Amino acid sequence: MSLSARVLDGDRRALARLLTHVENDDELGRIALDRLYHHSGTAHLIGITGPPGAGKSTLVNELIRAYRAHGNRIAVIAIDPSSPLTGGATLGDRIRMTGWHSDPDVFIRSMASRRYGGGLAAQTLALAHVFDAAGFDPIVMETVGTGQDEVAIADLALTTILVQAPGLGDSVQTLKAGALEIGDLFVVTKADRAESATLARDLQRLKTLRQGDPPAWDPPVLKTSATRQEGIEDIFAAIQRHSDWLIESGERERRQRRIAAAEIAAFVQAEVLRRADVNRRQSHVVNLIEDVAARKATPHWAAQRLLETPAFREDSC
Amino acid sequence: MSLSARVLDGDRRALARLLTHVENDDELGRIALDRLYHHSGTAHLIGITGPPGAGKSTLVNELIRAYRAHGNRIAVIAIDPSSPLTGGATLGDRIRMTGWHSDPDVFIRSMASRRYGGGLAAQTLALAHVFDAAGFDPIVMETVGTGQDEVAIADLALTTILVQAPGLGDSVQTLKAGALEIGDLFVVTKADRAESATLARDLQRLKTLRQGDPPAWDPPVLKTSATRQEGIEDIFAAIQRHSDWLIESGERERRQRRIAAAEIAAFVQAEVLRRADVNRRQSHVVNLIEDVAARKATPHWAAQRLLETPAFREDSC
Repeated sequence: MSLSARVLDGDRRALARLLTHVENDDELGRIALDRLYHHSGTAHLIGITGPPGAGKSTLVNELIRAYRAHGNRIAVIAIDPSSPLTGGATLGDRIRMTGWHSDPDVFIRSMASRRYGGGLAAQTLALAHVFDAAGFDPIVMETVGTGQDEVAIADLALTTILVQAPGLGDSVQTLKAGALEIGDLFVVTKADRAESATLARDLQRLKTLRQGDPPAWDPPVLKTSATRQEGIEDIFAAIQRHSDWLIESGERERRQRRIAAAEIAAFVQAEVLRRADVNRRQSHVVNLIEDVAARKATPHWAAQRLLETPAFREDSC
Repeated sequence: MSLSARVLDGDRRALARLLTHVENDDELGRIALDRLYHHSGTAHLIGITGPPGAGKSTLVNELIRAYRAHGNRIAVIAIDPSSPLTGGATLGDRIRMTGWHSDPDVFIRSMASRRYGGGLAAQTLALAHVFDAAGFDPIVMETVGTGQDEVAIADLALTTILVQAPGLGDSVQTLKAGALEIGDLFVVTKADRAESATLARDLQRLKTLRQGDPPAWDPPVLKTSATRQEGIEDIFAAIQRHSDWLIESGERERRQRRIAAAEIAAFVQAEVLRRADVNRRQSHVVNLIEDVAARKATPHWAAQRLLETPAFREDSC
């Protein structure tokens, strides 16, 4: 029985092995992923982001508890771009430490990835597809939200939760450009603290500054306190409402197309960059790169050449 | 006379106008950029990154002074991903405030961009090409180094300077994955502080952990103190040494190819994502996206279709 077949069959050890192959992007991983891909596409993909110290891991832990109580099998992909030199606990470790390792219907995977940009997005989605095909739903993707990551996670998720906590300095003031636009839910953690009410009010007010089309979905601002065990059921219900809205409005289909586009683009990006380092091996892409580097063609023209050609030589003849 | 011709002619107001068109990515900007592109490729592209508070703007300001003293015309692109809601001073403002606006051979441009990922990279390089064609050399690209940006800037630069300061917590410990690999120069600012010696020693030690090929270039760790006006000439000289090494070793050519590849990929990424939102308009790319979203094809297969096709239908028939 192939590794992918065993994963579809619910073999947890096969799943763990396959995730490693997929993460290493080796041939076995690629083959299995290609086989599993058409079994994916049903799970709800939840992206969680926010600044360090906002309480994302705690929230994920509470979400695991809530989804387990409702009978869901849940997978968590913790994307941790911090250095392997730190030796500190990764996001995934912090969730695992809360003791889910004995529950076969919870799977937590850390990605202390050295990849970035397109590579990181492709790797995250690849793991998500494997979990999806293996019957996990939802799949939570958690990332330390610094720089532009918090915007990028929205390209990979169906529901994006932006987590903010009081006491992180002037946190609302330091929201990254675009961060406001990408939140489908805003969650204020540490609701036991007095300043959390101000923060929630600020977020409510800032929401009205969102640009773009008149909002068909009005993102709720929700408060939660892990110490008081409050608020998690409201968040669970809001995710469900958003998921329903995605389906009814046709937005789910649009976001699936966006995710597909992001994944295709990520592969193209990784591959084009890889080929920039391949000397002397003639190929269409290498020729384009060399022409652009030599100023014989513009980057824009080269990109158009990649995008406007027919899929099959045979078809066009 | 066209806008691009006036820019090549040294018209500073035309340059400012063109930069706005390029930043807005409008038709006039695209046309002018395509015309100017083959006049670019000679300027040295310096990427400067490091955590907030590391003193990047101060260093850039000192570099402007040094390059002006050596007779160079210098351009600075300050990439500031923080929210337009903050109203705070952007990176560019902080440099401009030091009074370079009266010097016609210094041009500072802020990009408080709402774009991200591929769009941000493409926009940054587009501005760099315009400055390059207009005869500025070097071109300094400064970014607030949070998340993965500090790694990404290395894809756009010929020399990457990683700036660290003492007193930012355990800053060496929190170096992002890959940050160590991308630094061609390490600069420790605030050298007047006692802890700067420890930080410099830590960086020297960590350098030896760099992965990959045996280093043909050994990145120097340099200290600077803006208050004492020390160290900037050493940094200037080290950049020059690195630039010479790039040419002699053939590495400059390789990096130019990488930059070209990154730019092509950025355009492809932006365009593929854009087309994901285009409904019903049949095209090769839209069909691929829909097939992937519908699980009729895998993302990997779709990316290969984009990359393996010939540039021209006619050529293959």
